[in-house]
Parts: sequence; C-alpha cells; structure tokens
Amino acid sequence: PKKEWQIQFADDMQEFTKFPTKTGRRSLSRSISQSSTDSYSSAASYTDSSDDEVSPREKQQTNSKGSSNFCVKNIKQAEFGRREIEIAEQGIVILLRLALHSWVALLFLTLSSCTSTQVLIETLCALGAQCRWSACNIYSTQNEVAAALAEAGVAVFAWKGESEDDFWWCIDRCVNMDGWQANMILDDGGDLTHWVYKKYPNVFKKIRGIVEESVTGVHRLYQLSKAGKLCVPAMNVNDSVTKQKFDNLYCCRESILDGLKRTTDVMFGGKQVVVCGYGEVGKGCCAALKALGAIVYITEIDPICALQACMDGFRVVKLNEVIRQVDVVITCTGNKNVVTREHLDRMKNSCIVCNMGHSNTEIDVTSLRTPELTWERVRSQVDHVIWPDGKRVVLLAEGRLLNLSCSTVPTFVLSITATTQALALIELYNAPEGRYKQDVYLLPKKMDEYVASLHLPSFDAHLTELTDDQAKYLGLNKNGPFKPNYYR
Amino acid sequence: PKKEWQIQFADDMQEFTKFPTKTGRRSLSRSISQSSTDSYSSAASYTDSSDDEVSPREKQQTNSKGSSNFCVKNIKQAEFGRREIEIAEQGIVILLRLALHSWVALLFLTLSSCTSTQVLIETLCALGAQCRWSACNIYSTQNEVAAALAEAGVAVFAWKGESEDDFWWCIDRCVNMDGWQANMILDDGGDLTHWVYKKYPNVFKKIRGIVEESVTGVHRLYQLSKAGKLCVPAMNVNDSVTKQKFDNLYCCRESILDGLKRTTDVMFGGKQVVVCGYGEVGKGCCAALKALGAIVYITEIDPICALQACMDGFRVVKLNEVIRQVDVVITCTGNKNVVTREHLDRMKNSCIVCNMGHSNTEIDVTSLRTPELTWERVRSQVDHVIWPDGKRVVLLAEGRLLNLSCSTVPTFVLSITATTQALALIELYNAPEGRYKQDVYLLPKKMDEYVASLHLPSFDAHLTELTDDQAKYLGLNKNGPFKPNYYR
Amino acid sequence: PKKEWQIQFADDMQEFTKFPTKTGRRSLSRSISQSSTDSYSSAASYTDSSDDEVSPREKQQTNSKGSSNFCVKNIKQAEFGRREIEIAEQGIVILLRLALHSWVALLFLTLSSCTSTQVLIETLCALGAQCRWSACNIYSTQNEVAAALAEAGVAVFAWKGESEDDFWWCIDRCVNMDGWQANMILDDGGDLTHWVYKKYPNVFKKIRGIVEESVTGVHRLYQLSKAGKLCVPAMNVNDSVTKQKFDNLYCCRESILDGLKRTTDVMFGGKQVVVCGYGEVGKGCCAALKALGAIVYITEIDPICALQACMDGFRVVKLNEVIRQVDVVITCTGNKNVVTREHLDRMKNSCIVCNMGHSNTEIDVTSLRTPELTWERVRSQVDHVIWPDGKRVVLLAEGRLLNLSCSTVPTFVLSITATTQALALIELYNAPEGRYKQDVYLLPKKMDEYVASLHLPSFDAHLTELTDDQAKYLGLNKNGPFKPNYYR
Amino acid sequence: PKKEWQIQFADDMQEFTKFPTKTGRRSLSRSISQSSTDSYSSAASYTDSSDDEVSPREKQQTNSKGSSNFCVKNIKQAEFGRREIEIAEQGIVILLRLALHSWVALLFLTLSSCTSTQVLIETLCALGAQCRWSACNIYSTQNEVAAALAEAGVAVFAWKGESEDDFWWCIDRCVNMDGWQANMILDDGGDLTHWVYKKYPNVFKKIRGIVEESVTGVHRLYQLSKAGKLCVPAMNVNDSVTKQKFDNLYCCRESILDGLKRTTDVMFGGKQVVVCGYGEVGKGCCAALKALGAIVYITEIDPICALQACMDGFRVVKLNEVIRQVDVVITCTGNKNVVTREHLDRMKNSCIVCNMGHSNTEIDVTSLRTPELTWERVRSQVDHVIWPDGKRVVLLAEGRLLNLSCSTVPTFVLSITATTQALALIELYNAPEGRYKQDVYLLPKKMDEYVASLHLPSFDAHLTELTDDQAKYLGLNKNGPFKPNYYR
Repeated sequence: PKKEWQIQFADDMQEFTKFPTKTGRRSLSRSISQSSTDSYSSAASYTDSSDDEVSPREKQQTNSKGSSNFCVKNIKQAEFGRREIEIAEQGIVILLRLALHSWVALLFLTLSSCTSTQVLIETLCALGAQCRWSACNIYSTQNEVAAALAEAGVAVFAWKGESEDDFWWCIDRCVNMDGWQANMILDDGGDLTHWVYKKYPNVFKKIRGIVEESVTGVHRLYQLSKAGKLCVPAMNVNDSVTKQKFDNLYCCRESILDGLKRTTDVMFGGKQVVVCGYGEVGKGCCAALKALGAIVYITEIDPICALQACMDGFRVVKLNEVIRQVDVVITCTGNKNVVTREHLDRMKNSCIVCNMGHSNTEIDVTSLRTPELTWERVRSQVDHVIWPDGKRVVLLAEGRLLNLSCSTVPTFVLSITATTQALALIELYNAPEGRYKQDVYLLPKKMDEYVASLHLPSFDAHLTELTDDQAKYLGLNKNGPFKPNYYR
Repeated sequence: PKKEWQIQFADDMQEFTKFPTKTGRRSLSRSISQSSTDSYSSAASYTDSSDDEVSPREKQQTNSKGSSNFCVKNIKQAEFGRREIEIAEQGIVILLRLALHSWVALLFLTLSSCTSTQVLIETLCALGAQCRWSACNIYSTQNEVAAALAEAGVAVFAWKGESEDDFWWCIDRCVNMDGWQANMILDDGGDLTHWVYKKYPNVFKKIRGIVEESVTGVHRLYQLSKAGKLCVPAMNVNDSVTKQKFDNLYCCRESILDGLKRTTDVMFGGKQVVVCGYGEVGKGCCAALKALGAIVYITEIDPICALQACMDGFRVVKLNEVIRQVDVVITCTGNKNVVTREHLDRMKNSCIVCNMGHSNTEIDVTSLRTPELTWERVRSQVDHVIWPDGKRVVLLAEGRLLNLSCSTVPTFVLSITATTQALALIELYNAPEGRYKQDVYLLPKKMDEYVASLHLPSFDAHLTELTDDQAKYLGLNKNGPFKPNYYR
Repeated sequence: PKKEWQIQFADDMQEFTKFPTKTGRRSLSRSISQSSTDSYSSAASYTDSSDDEVSPREKQQTNSKGSSNFCVKNIKQAEFGRREIEIAEQGIVILLRLALHSWVALLFLTLSSCTSTQVLIETLCALGAQCRWSACNIYSTQNEVAAALAEAGVAVFAWKGESEDDFWWCIDRCVNMDGWQANMILDDGGDLTHWVYKKYPNVFKKIRGIVEESVTGVHRLYQLSKAGKLCVPAMNVNDSVTKQKFDNLYCCRESILDGLKRTTDVMFGGKQVVVCGYGEVGKGCCAALKALGAIVYITEIDPICALQACMDGFRVVKLNEVIRQVDVVITCTGNKNVVTREHLDRMKNSCIVCNMGHSNTEIDVTSLRTPELTWERVRSQVDHVIWPDGKRVVLLAEGRLLNLSCSTVPTFVLSITATTQALALIELYNAPEGRYKQDVYLLPKKMDEYVASLHLPSFDAHLTELTDDQAKYLGLNKNGPFKPNYYR
Repeated sequence: PKKEWQIQFADDMQEFTKFPTKTGRRSLSRSISQSSTDSYSSAASYTDSSDDEVSPREKQQTNSKGSSNFCVKNIKQAEFGRREIEIAEQGIVILLRLALHSWVALLFLTLSSCTSTQVLIETLCALGAQCRWSACNIYSTQNEVAAALAEAGVAVFAWKGESEDDFWWCIDRCVNMDGWQANMILDDGGDLTHWVYKKYPNVFKKIRGIVEESVTGVHRLYQLSKAGKLCVPAMNVNDSVTKQKFDNLYCCRESILDGLKRTTDVMFGGKQVVVCGYGEVGKGCCAALKALGAIVYITEIDPICALQACMDGFRVVKLNEVIRQVDVVITCTGNKNVVTREHLDRMKNSCIVCNMGHSNTEIDVTSLRTPELTWERVRSQVDHVIWPDGKRVVLLAEGRLLNLSCSTVPTFVLSITATTQALALIELYNAPEGRYKQDVYLLPKKMDEYVASLHLPSFDAHLTELTDDQAKYLGLNKNGPFKPNYYR
C-alpha cells in the first residue's frame, strides 16, 4: 500500500505541474543578490528608501496576531512581500513540500538558522518546525519579504543594511532566548556556527547536526574537524552533485552572458576573451561564450582541467601571452591576485575585466587605487579606470562576483539549493544514532538523486525504471543510488 | 603614389585601432530604442523628466553660436549629450570618416534626412555636407543628443514624445525652407519620401537619389517603382549582405537572450521553445537558444528554410503540435496573426510569448483585450495575462519587437548601418549620369565588401590578398567584388 | 478536385514514408566517387578486377531482351548491379517520381546525357523518356550498375577506366545515331555540350535546352552566353539554393570529419586547424571541426566572409601566421596555389594537408615532386612526404578532393541533385515559347522550393500553410515562391 | 640542482616535441581492436592470412639472438611489426619514458602481464624491467607486433585467434617458469589475477601489487576485497579521471560518428537519434550528434544524469515513447536488455541499432535469432535483419561495441592509458611499506595530474604556475594535487 506521504506527494506533484515556475518578474533572489553587493543601485530595489531612519532594534513592532517575536525593518511591508513570495517562489514551496514528505519529524525540529533562503525557513515553519532566522549577510535581506515572514509568525531577525554589530545581534537572537533550545543548525558562511562555539558551547549538547551550504562555511567545518573540535555531525551540502552543477556550471553558463550584457552591452561575436580557471564555473562561462561566437582562451594551474580545455577546443595559455589582445578578462579560479596591476597595465583600451569566481580577491583591485589612475563610475556596477594616456579599463562590480552583482539567480537554482538543504536537515535529524559521527559528510548520493528527481517534472522529463532483472545484473537497488559517490 | 584619402585613411585607422569601441555604458542606441517603445520606464532614461511641459515648437532657443535653426527639447542639455556621443560613438565616427574618404564630394551634398542615426548626420555635417534632420519615430529621439547636435550647428528638428502633428511638422522643416534645396534624401521608413512626393514634388528635380534603410521604406519604394512613379534612383540599403547579417542573424543571436533575461530572468537550459520562422532572425535566435541548452522547435512556411532547420537539428512542426508543451513562444516571421488567441488559450501556465519579427502584428495581442482576461503589469515591458482558471501567459513588450524594447543594439551594429548608409549616399551622389536610373538598387557588392573590410580591424582579422596569378585564374579583380550579387 | 498527379503524389508519398532511405551499405555513390579518383584501392570495389581485359568497345554483348544498344564492361553483372540499385536508391527513385509528376511530358523527352546520376536516367526512361547516356568521368562508372541499366534497356555507354578516346567515343554514341534526335541535353562538366557544338551544331535546332550541374560546365555556359554563342536556353542547376546548401554546407560538414578519420584516424579534439576559405564549404568544415573540439583558424580574401568568420568565433589570419603551429591544413577556396611549397616547408612534423575545395589546384602538389623529398604511400589516399630532416607532411588524396576521394556522398544529397536536375529538364522542356531565351538561367525559386518540400517528409517535418489573409498581407502566393531569388 | 631524470625528461621532451604523434596510417590499435571482434574482415588486416596452420605452440622458433623464450605466430614478421611500432607508437614511447623517469626502480621490476598494450611492455623491458606477457583477448594480438617484441627479447606468448586452451596456456607461461618470480601483476580483465589465485596462490607472497585497467577486472578485485580475499594492494586505473574522460567522453565523441559513418554512410543532419544512457559515453555521443545536426533523445535511470541531459538541451524520454520515430538507437548504459525484441519490432524501416556501452548485452540480439526474421550480411559489421513485412533493421557489429568493432582508438588515448598503467606500477612498486594495504585503490590524484601534464605539450598548452603566495592562500602544494579526489 502506498504510504501516506506518497499520496500527498502525488497531490503536490499534480499541483506542481499545474503551476510551474513563475517568470516575468525579478525573482526575490535578484533583489537579494543585488542588494547584497550593490549599495549604489536604488532604482531597481523594492525597498522603500524613504523609510524612516530609526534602527529596527529600537522600534516596537507587532504583527497582526500581536506577536513581537521578530525584528524587521517595517512590518507594514508584509503584504507586498507576501505577493512577491507568492509569485516568485510558489514552485519552490511545492517542491520543498515534496522533499519534506516525512514531515512528522519536522514537528520536533527546532532550528537556528543564518541563511539567505527565506522560502526554506517559511516552509519548514509551515510544516511544523520551529525556527529562528537571521540573515547571512548584512545586505542580503529583502525587507518586504522579511516582514511577510514575521507577519506569518516566523521569528526573523534581519533587515537590509545591518551594521556589523546588528549582524551579530541578529545572530544572537537566533540562539539566545529563554526557553529556546535548537536541535539543528542551518548555516551559510559559518558565522552562526562560529557564534555558538564561541558564546554558547553548551548548546551543542542538544544539537543533532549542522547543515552548511557555503564554500567558506564548509572550509571552516573541515578545519574544526581536522582540529578535532567538531562536536556534532555536519553535512556539507555545498559539494552535492546536483547543487554544484547548478550553482556553478549551469548557472554561470547563463549568468556570464547576462552579467556582461546588462553592464556593458558588449557584443559577444568575435570578441577575444580569456577565462582564468576551467573548473565548473569556467566551463560554464566558456561554453556560453564560445557558443555565441567569442574566441576563448583559458589559463589553468591544474593539468587535468587544462587537458579538458584542450579537448573542448580552447587554447590553454598563460595570461601574459594574451593579455594585450583580449577584449574581456574573466576570473573563475577561487584564487587571489590572478589579475595583477601588471596585467591591467598591459590591457588594451576598453578591455572589460570581471570576476565570476569567489569573493573579491581574484582581481587586484586595490592596485588600481593609485593617484595616476582616474576612476569614472559610468553606471551602477561599472567603473572606467583611466590611465594617463587615456586608456580605459572597464571594471565590473569592483571585482566582486559579477553573477551576484549584475545578474540574477534563476528560481530553479534556488529551488535546488533549498531542497538540498531541507533534505540534509531531515537526514541528520532522523538518522539513527551512530550513522553520523563528529565529522563532515557529503549528502548521501541517494538524497542527491532525490533532489534531482524532484526537479525533472518541470522539464517534462521521464525517467526509465530498472527491471528487477536489470537491477540484479547491475548490482543496484532499483531506487538508487545509481552511481558511486565520486561520480560527478 | 598613395592618394590623399589613403593617407588620411591610414591615420584614421591608427586612431581607430588605438581607441576601439567603447563599452561599459548604455549606448545611445539603448536609450533611443528603449524610449521609442517604453513609456513606462523612467529610471533608465537620461531625459530629465521634470522638464517644463512647453512644446518645443513654442520655445525660443538659440545655441551658443546664436543660431536658432533647429527645434529640440532643451538646448541646455547639449553638454551632457555631447559626452554621451563622445563615449559611445567615437568608434563609429572614425569608421565613418574612413568610409567617407572621398569627402570632397560631401561639400556639395545637401541632405534632407529622417532617420535615427544621429551620428551619421553629424559626421556628414562635420565633413562639409549640409543637412536638415528630423526623427523617424516620435519616441526615438534622445533629447540630450539632439541638443548636442543643435549646439554643433546641425539643423535638427526632433524631440522625444512628438505628437503626430509635430512629427510631420518636423519632417516639413527638413524640406521646406527658403533657400534650401536638398540634393539627396536619407530616409528610414519612407515618411520623408512620402511627404516630398505629396507636398513638394518639384523638389525631386534636384534630388540625385534616395537612400532608404527600413523594410517598410524599401517596400514602399518598390511599389513606387512598380507603379512607374519613382522619379529618382533609390538605394535599398536594407538588403545589403553586411547589414542584413548584422541586423538580423548576429544581432538577434545576442538580443534574444538579453531580451528574455532582462524581462523574465528565465533559465534557458532545458526550456522548450518554439520559434516561428527560420529566416535570418529565426536562425540567430535558434542558434543562441540551442547553444544554451534549450530544446527548440521551428515552424516554417518556406520548404527551403524548413529543410535548413532540419539539417541544423531542429524539429519542424506546426504550432498547434507543440503549443501545449512549450515554455517560450518567439515569433520571427514578418507575418501577421502567427500566434492567435486560440494558441494563447492552449498555452501552459507561465508560457512566455514574445516577438522578434517585425512591427507588432505577429502576435494577435488585440484578441487578449477581452473582459474575461486580466492584465497585470508586473514590470516594465512585462504583462501577465491571466485566464479565469488562474493560468498566466507572460507577454513581453505587448507583442512589439523584443529586441528594440527590451535589449540593446550594439554600437558595432549601428556602425555597420551608418557606414552602409554613408556609402550609399556617396555612391548615388557621385555616380556618373546614367549609371542609375529611376529604379531601386541594391548597394554594389564592392561597397558592401568595403563596409565589411572597415570593420575587420576591430576583430584583429587579417585579410589575405589575391596574387595577380590567382586573380587571373579566378577571373576576379584583386580588390573585389569577390562574389556574385546573389551570394549571401 | 485533385489533379491526377496529386493523387499519384499521395500514393508515392505513402510508399516513400514506408521505406525511407536505406542505410547500412556503401551507397552507389561511394563506389563511384571512390573509383573516380582512387586507382589504388581494390578491396572496397564491387568491380570484379579479374575481369578480362578486352575493351568493351570490342565486345559483342546483348541484354536478356536481345538488345545491343549499349556498351558496358560486362552485361552479366546486371543482376548484382540491380540489387545495389534496389537497396541504395529506392528512396531517390520514389522522390524522383514525385518530382516528375507531369510525366506525360516525358514521353516525348529525348535526352542526350553525360552525367554521373544513373538513377535519374533510369527513372526518366521508366517514365517514358528516351535517353542515351555516357559517363562524365573516365573513372566514375560503376560497371555493375551500368550493366543493370543496359539490361533494363537504357542505352548506356560507360565503363570504369575508359581511355580518353573511349570517353569521347561514348559521348559521341549519345548524340550520333541514326534516327536519334535529342530534344534536351543533360550535362555535367560541359563535355557533351562542347562535343555537340564542335561536331553536330545542327543538333541544336531541335534542342529545347541544356541542364548543367557542375561549376565548370556552368562557367563554360556563361562564357558561351557572354560570347553570344549560346543557341538554346540553359539551366544552371549548380547554383540552386537547395543543391548548393547540400552539396557544400551540409555535405562538407559531415565529409570533412569522415574523410580525415578514414584516412588518418586523427583525433579532432584540441587539434589546431587552418581552413582556407570561408564560403559554404569552409563554413561546413569549420562548424564540424569546432563542434568536435578543434581550434580553427580561417584565411579569407573576401571581407564579408571574413566578417562572418569573426562573428562565428574564428580568428581570421594569413596562412603564414599560423602555418608553423597547425596540425591540419584544409583548402576550400576554389583558387589555385593557396598552399605553396613555402608553406609546406614550414609546416610542423605530421601536419595533415588536404583539399575540400575544387579540382586539384589548391595545394601546389607539383612543387613536392622534387628529388630531396621522399614520398611514402602509407595507405590508399595517404602519402607521407618526407623532408631531408625527417619531417613528414601527410598529404591526402594527392591534393584532389578529399570528400570525393576518401568519404561518401549521402544518398540524400544525391537525391537532392537528381530531383533538381529532373525538375530543370521538365521546366525547360515544358516552358511556353519565349519564357526562356538563349541565356543561362537559375532554377525558378518555386521549383527550388519544391525540391526542398519533397525531401521534408524524410525528416518528419511539417510545413505550416499561409492563411489567405496572411498570404494577402505578405503579398505572396500561398504556394510560393516565398522568398526573393537572391535569398539564400 | 636538477635531478638526473629531470635532465633526461627535458631531452625527451625536446625529442617529443620534434616528432609528435604520427598520423596517416591506421594505428596499431586499430588492427588490434578490429581483429578482436571482427573475424570477418580480412582486407584491412595486416596479418598474413595465408600463414601455415600449424599451432604456434607446436612450432620451434628462435629470434635472431637465439632466444626461444616466447611463443608467437611467426617470428619472421618481426621486421614488419617493428616498422608499425616505429611509425605508430613513437609518441607513446617517449611519453612513457618521461613518465617512468624513476626508472632505476624498474631494474628490479618483474612483471607478469596480460594486457593489450604491447608498447608499454616493450618500454618497461627497454628500461630494465623483466616481463612475461600474454594477450588479454584471443583476438587482440597483432601477430607482427608480437613477433617484433619477441625479436626484441620480450617473453611474449600471444597470437591472433588463440583457442580458449591456448589462452590459458599463454597466461600460464607468464607465471609458471622455473626461476621466475614476478613482483608485480599488470592485468586487463582479471584473467591473469584469477589464474594466479587459482593455481599459484603462493606467488602472491612476493607480489607487491596488481594494476588493473578494465571495468570487469576492477569489479572482480572489489569483490575479492569485499570478501576479504585480496592479499595484495591493487590499483584501479580504470577510474582515474584522465583515463575515464579520454576512454569515454572524448573518445566516444569522435568514435560514434566514425563508427556510424564507416558502416552505414548515414547523414547525421536532421536524423532523430535516441541515446540510452547519459553517462560519460552517452555525453560524448550526444555532444557529437547534436553538433552535427541530429535531434537527440535520452533515456536515463539516474535522475542526476537525467537532469544534466535536460540542461544540455536533450529531451529525456522512455524508449517506448520515441522508438517508432527514431532513425538511430544507440545504447551506452552498461546494462542488459536495454533494447528488447519488443522495441526492435516497433522500430521503423531502416532504423540503425548499435551499442557503444559495454560488452554485448545491451541489445537483446539473441531475440532476433528467430525463424521469421531474415538476416542479411550487407557488409562487414553490418547486418540487415528483415521482418516478414519487409521492414529492415540495421544492426551494427551484432550488438558488440561499435567503437571497438568499427572505428579506431586514437594513439593519443592509448598513450593516456599506457602512461597511467606505468605510473600505477611504479607507485605500487615503490610505495613505502604500509602506504597501501590489501585493498583496491584509485591512482593518487597527483599521478593522475602528472599523466595529464605529460600530454599537454602535444596541444601546445601552457600551464600557469601558482605563486608561493597563491599556493599558501589556497592551502595547496605548488605542484599539486590541485583538486579533491572526488573532483572529476
């Protein structure tokens, strides 16, 4: 007989198919990502800039049910935020419900969270979990959406433009409250985890696990583990196959074009481009640029990636060899000082320089802050750096991430991420004692496959099922996992 | 010995190579095209919207040299407009100078012009021609740029948001002035030509030719010619190979992605898209979408184009066969009612519908203006049309041209167009008596090739020259033309 | 009411759909093309090489019906040849029948033909036409197929390995026979036309037209026309859109890979390739090589094609700039001495050189026949030319056409060609007096479109029909032609 | 100071760059792979088929140095085989020498080997190792090459067309000889390992490790390990990143086109193709077919691969949904009975069916051996299976691997494999006690990277080196490894 959740699953799937992902509207993610890095732009922001300047921490606000268990910019923006959520995120919510089918567990899940994925938090709450939520970045909150969550009863502590002090205050609210004891931590960047370690180490006695989605946060967890200081199991969802491919390869394949076009209106056809780094991000960028008629060069330090670049039809060069001739320089290495002042000095006039990699270290922007160079802000996210002889280099987003600063993250990618996080929470929470030790784990392959399978209907894709005979021949379970863990 | 213009050519080429096309700034074209169709957007416009509301026709304005021989919105915006021109169009100006090497002829060229290519007008004037210029579209003028041209002494009659009466008044100013007798007409859409035919037929006695760049204008000229009413030679520059490829194939290959992304943030990967029409525009759209992972279907009426679609890897279908399953519908036919209400009724929820073809006839938008459907403007250029059962169709730019409304025309494409127009003017003006009769001509192949050759240096492309022996073997002149006229 | 041929058309179409193009067997074309240039290979040939060495002209042969009105190598091979035809060409025959729906005309068509398309001849005969046929090339006849045609009653004069004297003797048999008066000429290369001009000028009095399919033959016709010596209308089917695209772009896109792989087993990924010439052939080669991961450079003399190459993502260079670094050199120019001894001297070891262009002029192979260089035939169609220092250059097909020598022409392409020729014959034969003068004509656009439409069902492609309203709006006939003649 | 092997490395690299991979000649691999599966073909084989029929085991043969320590078909073929090796494999030999720089170790390496990579064996011997070698497949030996190895003093026991008894006899010779005690095993398929386990378990006392390169052999090793019966360390070189990508993705991207073209001359443009399985092999096949204009459908059981297929622009279907409409069916699953008789019954006429996956289980060929179906062998590797109604299905290589049967493995890929094996041998042999236990290991990432780096010069690819500062920032050693082990 079908289990109950399977029946619910079928109903939700029907609803999902009926109303797939919305389009035609800047997704929430856009506002978020834009705001997170762009303190210049204002026209595109949904946030009412004429808001009073009183700190949210000093305001007395209650939602329509009389609760004050939150701290947001302006609870009155809840209705607008609600509409945003409804239009943009409906598809995600349904997928999340599908993913969280075993939601009986959620009734007992209490979550301290510091993340950018509001929709996940609200869905968890709607399914019975108790959450306290702050933002992972001082710019990343969309005030209206935060208000809507507060109105819906979520304990949210976040607004756009927090000070550093505000930031830690908000995080503290997620952990430190009378009668509150989280049993799970959902983190993005490791700041919440860090805070708990530092201030409330006893909290870990009741914590069943940490779910972390960022490169940085995962790095910090591995360091803790190496140092023998990790005291609960942690799930690294950053490196799950599905999330990786979408966050990097597929997402960047589209966002490199979008980011360059929105900022510079550059024509891709015939342009000479050098892409530093041929990992997943680089592969995505190069595929798109090549397809649109650009001539692409690669720099690499890893011979395996370099060989892949060769076989994919790209010349592998040192940056110095092509720096004088290229029209566009794109960094995707995760490294620092990949583009140095010396390189910048040798670029030709109108060369565009941008970063798709990580943080803001790849281009040595600091080296351009010298008296002989003139900076001219020609539009939001676009600076002309002008040499004494009149040469201009076009620097995008001041070397920060182009895809966060100047383009959007599709709802679909957000959905992959949220679903992955949700499954990781459930897995750690539900796991029988002893399955996970005080270590960092990758999401089990089978769950990774489940995230993928939930997203197939939106492509009208039809999976084939193994026959019993075939499953036996392959030595596989008919429901997966189908590949070894190292398969990418 | 080198001719004088060849020396000048070399100098200009050097300058051109030193400062190639600017980027990092919305080009003029963007403002123009945006404004032409988008009365909603304001944030992105350079035009000061708090301007007084007095009609330009009633204002008394003089430029800094005391001239009043113009009519623009606000002459005070000249400086800002000048800066725009300098940054965005420098590359074009130099190419134009190169193209117009035989500029001694220009001293005697008097031009009545109705076009959107301001930079061409200014260059012609700078080289000694006398021009009177109005806009080809009531929305297409960028006031600041018009002011800059007026300040520079060009007789310009154009502002953004002209009434229909204003429009014809401006055109009249280009022809009807004491002491003014044009010897050439540069038209875009055929309105100026039409006006002269209707009001001042005698003007044609001194006119050496008409240069026309639009599909519509060319169509009108062929009709005149067929009816035996064309009384001067006319050059159809719309169908020159270089311009066609760039206006359609190459430009649309980029603008379809840009237009869809800016308006809907749609993820292309895995999307099912039907493209109606596999001419040059359709070919460009399909190539880009396929390259980014969309699954593309084609509809066609022409078996030759249909066969090309097959060989390029696209399924050729009737619209009805796929209308229920596709995520995006794009029209590129030049036809009318290609997407009917019946099709719209059968689309799935969130289907995006847009037009890359021509004018606004391809999608039967009128059929959607019925009481049972709700329109919701979700952002500039994007409407959700909502069916009673909640289904939403996402209509872009109200069915007008997506690439004009929602994305930009690269400076490079503008340059191709302006250079082609300039050469056509020179050719008709300089042609010995009898070379051109009262008919419509394509730009001579050799000039088409010259336009192309002027744009090669920006790609650092190196042409091979025929040896004498090879030229003889092929029966070709070493300097071209290299292909028969029908070669595309 | 449906016309009779439309009914027949429907029946044939049904049959056609039931048995589409055969595969899994070297097509006839392969044998033909192989043999035409490859006197080395024997294993792959169907021709019995142990055949007696008596000249066919000296043999007495009769087919099973007692006729001797033919001259072939060995009439006994008819059965084998018939089977070849049945398996390989069935699809073509049906398409031809479809094309030749107005076959009543054929009863009176008498044809002198010198071509490689046997299946066309037999179909014409089967439909009532009278034909006499010789081969257009001394190597291009497949003896078994010729025997099958002779057995079927076709007056065929052709065998593999004719001497030059044989060649002209065979051609003479096509024209010069008591009681024979052709009313049409179907030529491929212009030799038959030349022979009639020279020997039997009076024959032209009854000839209604010439159909010519080769570049060379068309060139000769234009020269005749220019010289005022063309005394009947001629149809240039070489330049019809459909045939051009398939013979060049689509066919070469596949045959460049096949030709290189069969001869050298080269891995394409990462290879540096220079393609000389970016016309249709070059475009096809480049698209395929780029898609498989090669890095492609282009040389061009025509700035329009050069600009297209840039926009398609290829660097445009002079051959000298890259000759030292490339792994493969491919000529597609139609020119002569594009690759000179000097270039060959500078190539790196193991560089592959081949010609996809025309005839054998593009690579200066003669310059390699010098004492200091050693030639080593390593396999059929592959020579290593060895420099004194040990450097080897790999020369394919001795500089002749790679796609004819080393790979195959798909049946589909043969079908396009044969159908185009058949329609051209019908058009010239049926045309009312005065429609065609003593000049060279392109196939009317509408017929070109018809050829395309006949081949759409094999792709299961569904054409859209214009509504009356749309046709009127576009000013087109609902049945075409849909595009101007110069549209490609 | 440079170590000695670094100096040698530099010299070899120079030589390598001077004479890169040969082309223009069927590589040895072709003969091998062809013969391994194709007992029909003879024309293309280098093996003298008129050889006497005496079993090699019964012949007395000595090489020119008087040694009889081998068993080959005919020692007289040594010279021809030597020339083959020289031309085809020179590039590999040099790379191997580079890889085996620490060859002092080799002096003491004694190897029992059962593999297809002759060149590796000879190189090892040349560098001082002692080897005894038999073939891994009864058809895979090229007699001339075996003779050349015997002549060079290698103890080789292999000929083409061994009986099963011969096969085990040869393997026995590799292990069982007085005075012979191997310290390493190099296996391909696991037969040698199996034999030693069964017959000479004591041999393992002196064995330091097993290197295995096949899927099957690796599977058997993991089973041994799981069962606790593996008594020495084993290296799984099948799953090293470099080898995987080349054996599967890159190699199949080329060989699918080659295999289909050589056997069927099919035109790819517009063809509808279903590819079963979207792993590395499927990805390679699909990329190539899509690039050449085919319309590709995918079937998948794994949702992650299915999602990748969607994002790459392919429709994911069940085989039943498209089986009636497709022109080509390609299996790449590694599964069995993926194409069943029911599917075959529903295919349309002329549908091509082939297998790129593994062994011969994917297509249920047995189900076609029924009386109502007629088999017609139309050429080597191509059967027409004919249904009673005349429908033909074109079956390639009787369902065995198309890429082994009908196309070639590029020398480059052989080189990757041989180099990987060599490094694995060295690593296991040289590893300090305790590094490897009685388990199955992947090749260390750093060695995988080294294999890749050795092959970069043939693409003229230039790696970038990390600065000290960057290496520290990334926490990496400047010489790698650069990525985690699970990175693909």
